[in-house]
Amino acid sequence: MNPVDIRLYGILGPQDTHGRDLAACARAAADGGTTIIQLRDKHSDARILVEEARALKAALAGTGVTLVVNDRVDIALAADLDGVHLGQSDMDPVDARRLLGPDKIIGITLKTESDARALADQPVDYGCIGGVFATTSKDNPAPPIGLAGLAQVAAIARETRPGMPVGAIAGINLANLRSTIGAGADGVAVISALFAHDDIAGAAHGLRQAIDAALAGRGA
Amino acid sequence: MNPVDIRLYGILGPQDTHGRDLAACARAAADGGTTIIQLRDKHSDARILVEEARALKAALAGTGVTLVVNDRVDIALAADLDGVHLGQSDMDPVDARRLLGPDKIIGITLKTESDARALADQPVDYGCIGGVFATTSKDNPAPPIGLAGLAQVAAIARETRPGMPVGAIAGINLANLRSTIGAGADGVAVISALFAHDDIAGAAHGLRQAIDAALAGRGA
Repeated sequence: MNPVDIRLYGILGPQDTHGRDLAACARAAADGGTTIIQLRDKHSDARILVEEARALKAALAGTGVTLVVNDRVDIALAADLDGVHLGQSDMDPVDARRLLGPDKIIGITLKTESDARALADQPVDYGCIGGVFATTSKDNPAPPIGLAGLAQVAAIARETRPGMPVGAIAGINLANLRSTIGAGADGVAVISALFAHDDIAGAAHGLRQAIDAALAGRGA
Repeated sequence: MNPVDIRLYGILGPQDTHGRDLAACARAAADGGTTIIQLRDKHSDARILVEEARALKAALAGTGVTLVVNDRVDIALAADLDGVHLGQSDMDPVDARRLLGPDKIIGITLKTESDARALADQPVDYGCIGGVFATTSKDNPAPPIGLAGLAQVAAIARETRPGMPVGAIAGINLANLRSTIGAGADGVAVISALFAHDDIAGAAHGLRQAIDAALAGRGA
């Protein structure tokens, strides 16, 4: 298991920038305390995806922020990113690990208790549980699992893979992140809570402070 | 440059089987004399794509037929296919070659004279020129280039990369393949001319005979 800090997890693609430069948005998020960024672009062709991935990598160089790409192992390899994030219908993590080697980060989306139990056989470095709340950022026809669902899936993930960080995604913002972390998330993945703001770095800073306080409160 | 026989190039995905088993369709095409098959599925998620690729590979084992996948270098790697076929907006062939190594087949779609000139810097093993005629098999908003366009692009491809096979795609069938090969194609890529038939092996056999005759006629 590769160590990865998922406390503040920003998900970003051209659809989230409101016309701003993708790499500049990522850098602002990093400057404000985002710990990991996922390039998520379901619409662009591979040549553009490689360009986006390389631009983000250049923008994040030296920040220590982890950079992964959604779904596409080939893009992660071509741009030499830190890893990939896989949904349950993306490449099997066993195949992805074989292609990426032992040192890359592989994350996986967990939606159900069954997904969390399957972690036992999966060479992944973190999980991200969702959708927790309703969200406008992603087309997600499944009903939200809520805090109770998050707590259940997180508990099984912890039992199955002790020490592996598990985050939470969907509809998380400053107002509900304390309860999200209280329910068992080690970090929160956000899109609009970061990138819908004019001041992305400021938004990141506010979220990160609240996350760290909530994690400290849970640890006490 | 890796040798590849593109005389009869079948393109196949779940959208082309008319409810039949994907692997069985590929095998029937191989049995009838198809020389290369491309898995082309723009809609399925990666986990399904890997399954499809493995099923085709198993079905084609021992036939000598080359198996490539459209666009996705990661799927080619995961299923250890013979290679990939790249459109002009897919991954840059230089990046793809780095990921795939020297022995895999990389093919590329050529639409313009400029695409054909760019072959000089591209580590690809074959080209496929199109769309030659109007087709119902693919959404293709660009107007067909016709036999004259095919001949122009093929001539530049031959000048740029002597000895590299160049095929033709879009709307090709038994009725027009002699003129297609006469215009400079070393092979023809088809979807419905193979897979719209109840007897795929029979359709392949008929096409392959006509292709070989046309190539022999051109060589004489």
